[in-house]
Formats: sequence, C-alpha cells, structure tokens
Amino acid sequence: MKPTIPKGTRDFPPEIMVKRNFIFNTIRSVFGRYGYMPLETPSMENLSTLLGKYGDEGDKLLFKIVNSGDFLADISSDDLSTGSSKFINKISEKGLRYDLTVPFARFVVMNRNELVFPFKRYQIQPVWRADRPQKGRYREFYQCDVDVIGSKSLLNEFELMTMINDVFKLLKINIVIKVNNRKILSGIASYIGYDDKLVDITVAIDKMDKIGYDGVVEELADKGISHAAINKLEPVLRLSGNNCEKLQSLTSLLKDNEEGMRGIQEINTLLNYISVSNFVDCPVELDLTLARGLNYYTGAIFEVKAADISIGSICGGGRYDNLTSIFGLPDVSGVGVSFGADRIFDVMTELNLFPDDAVKSTDVLFLNLGDESVRYCLPAVAALRDRGACVELYPDAAKLKKQMEYANKKNIRYVVIAGETEIANNEFAVKDMVSGTQTSVAGGNYLFDVIRKL
Amino acid sequence: MKPTIPKGTRDFPPEIMVKRNFIFNTIRSVFGRYGYMPLETPSMENLSTLLGKYGDEGDKLLFKIVNSGDFLADISSDDLSTGSSKFINKISEKGLRYDLTVPFARFVVMNRNELVFPFKRYQIQPVWRADRPQKGRYREFYQCDVDVIGSKSLLNEFELMTMINDVFKLLKINIVIKVNNRKILSGIASYIGYDDKLVDITVAIDKMDKIGYDGVVEELADKGISHAAINKLEPVLRLSGNNCEKLQSLTSLLKDNEEGMRGIQEINTLLNYISVSNFVDCPVELDLTLARGLNYYTGAIFEVKAADISIGSICGGGRYDNLTSIFGLPDVSGVGVSFGADRIFDVMTELNLFPDDAVKSTDVLFLNLGDESVRYCLPAVAALRDRGACVELYPDAAKLKKQMEYANKKNIRYVVIAGETEIANNEFAVKDMVSGTQTSVAGGNYLFDVIRKL
Repeated sequence: MKPTIPKGTRDFPPEIMVKRNFIFNTIRSVFGRYGYMPLETPSMENLSTLLGKYGDEGDKLLFKIVNSGDFLADISSDDLSTGSSKFINKISEKGLRYDLTVPFARFVVMNRNELVFPFKRYQIQPVWRADRPQKGRYREFYQCDVDVIGSKSLLNEFELMTMINDVFKLLKINIVIKVNNRKILSGIASYIGYDDKLVDITVAIDKMDKIGYDGVVEELADKGISHAAINKLEPVLRLSGNNCEKLQSLTSLLKDNEEGMRGIQEINTLLNYISVSNFVDCPVELDLTLARGLNYYTGAIFEVKAADISIGSICGGGRYDNLTSIFGLPDVSGVGVSFGADRIFDVMTELNLFPDDAVKSTDVLFLNLGDESVRYCLPAVAALRDRGACVELYPDAAKLKKQMEYANKKNIRYVVIAGETEIANNEFAVKDMVSGTQTSVAGGNYLFDVIRKL
Repeated sequence: MKPTIPKGTRDFPPEIMVKRNFIFNTIRSVFGRYGYMPLETPSMENLSTLLGKYGDEGDKLLFKIVNSGDFLADISSDDLSTGSSKFINKISEKGLRYDLTVPFARFVVMNRNELVFPFKRYQIQPVWRADRPQKGRYREFYQCDVDVIGSKSLLNEFELMTMINDVFKLLKINIVIKVNNRKILSGIASYIGYDDKLVDITVAIDKMDKIGYDGVVEELADKGISHAAINKLEPVLRLSGNNCEKLQSLTSLLKDNEEGMRGIQEINTLLNYISVSNFVDCPVELDLTLARGLNYYTGAIFEVKAADISIGSICGGGRYDNLTSIFGLPDVSGVGVSFGADRIFDVMTELNLFPDDAVKSTDVLFLNLGDESVRYCLPAVAALRDRGACVELYPDAAKLKKQMEYANKKNIRYVVIAGETEIANNEFAVKDMVSGTQTSVAGGNYLFDVIRKL
C-alpha cells in the first residue's frame, strides 16, 4: 500500500526544481526587460468558458470537477441513461484549464475596460489534459506563454523574435527560428484556385521532405486538386535557396494576389528589422511548411528548433486576430509565443547545458560537534547568510561520518568544522570537498572572505 | 454572456502579481539561505491519498475530478440511489490537493530511499478547498510551507524562528512570534488529572481574554472537569509576566510531570538560543493559549501576528512526529511553518509596505514616431535592456497623446522621444514623467548613464 501519484503527473524534487527554476527565471528576466508583465488565472474555469474551444477531442480531454455538495440532488435514473457525455453536464460545471490562451482571452474580455492596451502579459502556469500519458506527454504540465494584444504592429513580432533569441542565448541553446505567414499560404491556395483547400495544401507541402515531389503530387490529386492547379503549385514545392531567394520566387508567383503579397511584405518587414538591428543572431528561416494551428493564426507563424539535437519544437506561436471574439469581443489582434518548458529541460539535460550555479544547493555546511561548537558557530553562520551565502548548520550532533555524507550527497562544496582546538584559537577549519584540502581560518569576517575566494 | 470565473477564485493581474512575487521571492530568498530547497507535487492526488486525512468535513471540501472517458460504464441506477457521498467514489478517483502537508508526506514516503535526511524543503503552490467563499477565504489559494523532516534537534525550531524573523524584517512587517509547546499543555492536563480533556482545557484557556476567569471556570465545569481540578488549574489561567516569569510559575507547577517538564525545557532551550544569538529581534511570547492543530503537533507550536494591524495569524506551524505514519512510515519527526501569502499581502497593502521597486513595471518607454524614428531608437532600446533596464518601444505609430497616456497608466517614469531634430543631432529627448522635466541627451552610451542617474 505504498502511495502513488496519478498517472501522467510528476513530483519535481529539489534537484529538478532548481533546474526548472533556472529555465523559468531566465525566461521571466527576458520577458520583464521587454515590459511584459506576469498574469495568473485560476486553475479552474467554468465549463462554459472551456467547452467548444478545443474541438470535440479537446472537450473530451478536459478534466471536469464534480459539483460540491449533494451533486446528485436533481439527478434521476433517466439522466443516467443519457450516457457519460451528457450526464457530465449535470454534475459538473467547472473544469481545469486546458491551456493558457482561452483563460487569457476570457481575462482580457472580462477586464477590457480596465486594461491598458497594448496589453503585454506572460503567464507561466500548469495546464491539464486527460491525454493518454506517454514518454514526454503528461497530464499536468507547465505552459509558458507571452502575448501582446491590441496592437497590429509588426514590431511586436520582431520583439518576440528578439526575446526568443535572448532567452535561448542565455540558456546556451543554439536554435533556428522558422517563420511563415498565414497570408502567404492563403495566397498560394488562392493562386492555384483552391482557397477552400488551404489545409490540405499545407499538409501536403509539409510532406515534401518525407515523400518527395511525386508523393506530394499524388496526395494533392487524392484531395481533389486538379492537375493544372498542381502544376501551378510546382514552383512553391520546389522553392529553395535562402530567405531572399525564396521571397523573390514567391513574389513573382503571387504578384497578383493581394493577400499573398501582404504576407510577403510582412515577412520582408520582419527580416528587414532583423537585418538592420542585428539583434537576432540565430538563423531565421522562411519555411512554408510551417503551419502550426493554422486555423487559428492569421499572420506570422513561428517555430523554434534546437540546432544541436533532434527534438520537436521548443517554442512556437504566431499572430491571431480573433482570440477574444469567442467571448464576444471581436477585432482584437494579438501575437504571442509559447515556450515548451519540458522540451527545453530535456534539451538542456541532454546537451549538459545547466550551469553549475543552477544545480548547486547549499554553499557551506557547518558541522555539529555538540552544543558548545554550535553556539560558537552560530554568529558565523548568520554572517555568511547575511552576505547571501546559502549556509546550513547540521541540526543534530550526529556522527561525523553521517554529517560528511550529508555534505557529499547534497553536493555541498565547503564544510566548516569548529572543534575544541579551533574554538580555543578562535578559528574555523574549512574543508574544500572538491579538492579535499583543509585550511584553518581566523574567525570573524575573515572566514567569509576566505570562503568567497576559495 | 460576459464570461465569469468560478466563485472563490481570482485572476491575479500584473499589478497584483508583481506584489505577490515580491512576497514569494523574499520568502524564497530566505529559505534558500538556510538550505531549504524547492519541491513541487502534482495538483491532483489519488483520492486514496487525500481521503481521511482532513476529517469528515475536509473530505467533503475536496474538489473531486470525474474519471476520464466513459465514467458511467459500470454504473447502474442502484449506484445512483446510494446518494452523492457514495456515488462519488464510483466516478472519481482523483482530487485536487487540499494542503501541501499530505502531498509532502506522500512524497517523502514514496522517495524515502533516495532522499537525504534531514530533508529540508519548501513548497509554494496553490491548494483547493470547496469552502463557502467569503471575504479573505478563497477556493483556490497559495500555501507556502517550509519543513525539515528527519531531525529532532531544536536547532531546527530555532532556525525556523530566525527565518520567520528574517522574512518579516525584509518585508518590513513588525511581528510578534508566539510560541507554545504541546508537551506543556499535555503536562497541564495530566497535572489536573484530565489527560483525556486536553482539547477542552486548551479551548477554555484560549477564552480567558474574551470571557474572563469566571467564564472559563464555568466552561470547564460544563465539560465535566471537577472543581478540585479547576482550582489546581487557576495558576495556569492566571499566568502572567514575561516569558521567564511564566516559565518559572509553570516549572513550580509541573515539576513532577515528566512530559510537562520536557516541554518547559524545550521552550527554555529555544529561548536560550534566541538570547545568545541575538538573531531574532522581534518579540517572542510564550502563549499557552496557542494550540493550532493540537492533535497534529507534538512539540513546539508557533504563530506569528502582525504587530501594527489586527488580523489573524500570518504564519504558523510546529513540530509533528507522525506526519508520514499515515502512509506507513512511522517515527519520522519534522517541524515546519506555513506563511499565509494572502494575509501577508493584505497587511502590506493596508500598511503601505510594498517598496516602489516591487510595484514598478517598465522603466523607460520609447515613443513611436514612425519608422525612421523606430530604427533610430532600436539600438538604444537594446542597449538599455542589455543593462537590465525594463524598456518598451511603443509598437504603433499612434497619436502622441495615446502613447503618453500609455506611459502614464503604466506608471512608466521615463519617456524617450526621437523626433527629426533629435535624430539630426544624434540625440534623444528624455522626459521625466514625475518631475515633468525634459532633457536632451547625446545618443549612445551617454543616454543610459543619464537615465540611470535621473
């Protein structure tokens, strides 16, 4: 009867927490420098807020909370016979949030008269999905979203890209930022005469790497796209070269398509900001196959890949124009990205990128050699802490072996010992657990300087 | 159809979040200096972990999550007729955590072979209770617990008290720490011959301030305590003076009671650590009426009150010996306290204690006077951010009035303007929104120095 935790959930013990905090704190520090401010929303939302926002599949994956009190009071066996999917609405009116986007939209609509627009917020909170748990997929996981809402300026896209660049530079993860624009994709679909097949076309384009030109042609034909249209699409499928070359090809192709040209112009503006500012020093790649959340995004689409390891995207997002319309507030444009904390954690672990500072715990352990030694040590312990050091005094006068083991297991670098001799000489013995050397140090302030320098 | 949030829950908008973060970061920084490390556990626990740990009332207040999928598959109308309290177990096997203590105990038991003891952890996470919402009571709120488990040393109690002292000193809240010891209370009950009436006696003692000596005597008699016993109790009820005087009275009273004397000795040791170290500079008061969670604590009991405002306790805790025994691991002693984030927030708001730094958002806003100005400003924006300043560039070339309003509403101190003249002279105009003065500053690094100094 050993206790367990629900499948798909995790405990984060200290050695993991300090690494996760390093990631989150780095991200927060960058967001803060750009004027993005923290927001938190409740873990529970009314089901009326959540249902219908994530498709039928999403509705099923919501964790629903049973109403408090006598929740069966008005329930009859007739209700029971309606089946789980209807019955649930009779006994539950709240659910755990599924993402941070819908609660954010709900917050903006509820507070639209008080908020200052453009409203720049970030939100780092867990979300819950009743997905089948598997490697790397959890039922509770953190999302880390940053959005600005109420401004159509491309400067927002540009600043998000510099933020992405800054975050991963600080985390020492080499990245490639892939960009695309929904308007270009729409333009292409329109250009070949199939506005309504935008998704099919994008999905097919996405498979070029895997199934090759002939495979894609076959798939497009299967979806009912004419041969003439597929022929018109060929230059898009064969698009190559650097961003500039790709954009030139696209421009000559889409020159008569207003929406497509607007998309090209947006990408050009963004790339121009990047080249004149020099702030984004990671590679930026125009990638027409990038279509995450296509039905949702209306302009720029971003995705970030780690350059040195093969893993899914570690950050992504884009521009949307209708986030708040689901709650009756239309025409509020926004743009944002989401950082994948778990994947970033995996990349950093795999590539051994966590700095020593992020994984260290206590700096100094004072051994407990009994009451007299403890009292002798207390002022030194306090003074070191005052200087910002992380210091422990072993609480029990346990065997020295046990205390030293504690220091070892906790990866504590310095152990301070005050035995009879040290006390008599007003000294401390300081042992460096890495080098193994032991130094005698005069008490008082000198101790701190020595430890600082060691 | 304006959206709402579930009753008893809250959104934390940026201006509240920065203040809450100031509190949490202060607390974390102190915990860290004492070698306490962060831990997080899942929001959901198995109901088998939670049920029966908080009494019948607590069981009712757990938020329960409906099983995923076809949760009615094995349910018949007979099950329905068993009523809500039985039916729930057939459709729910997970609940939201009710506190951080039980999940912590569950974590320790699950990981007992890997953990290094004494295990010092802190945990700052939300908990959920289906309580009736009222002023200051929420259905979702953060707890902030710090505990050390696996050590019986009173140095732990002492360090917790210095941590409490440090936290509230940094928050500039004047406090009184009240201490008691369960063993003294047991000793008193035993001394008057009513070991089994410990709770009744403590509850009565607790009312001295409100109902006076005669009232307490009446209440004790109502509970079936003999007049002889009540007479023996009189010196306890009339206990007065400073800690030292109270302890002397108690000592002469309980001198033949082993447990009571052990409690007195524990308090003495603690007070002695405090007086020799001088680390705890807030008032510490022995208070026999202090009995929070009496059935749970086995030694020291703590409670912290704000000195300058009348509000419930803002921190409290104590020593427990059987936390993990509920999960089959007996004899693990621990001690810890919990900081009440919401109350601390209220105290600091009421007394106006949040420092300006904690409530400021963006330091500098660069106005957007169109594309040329933006490009001229970009390097300066980036350089200021590199130096750690929080800087925004208004994304849209909106009317100046609107941009200035944005700065005003967001409480941004410095506004930088680069119009044609400034650009021609390679300058920036810097407006101090507090003093109203405007200065022209040469571009490049000089700008940052000026803003730094302004």
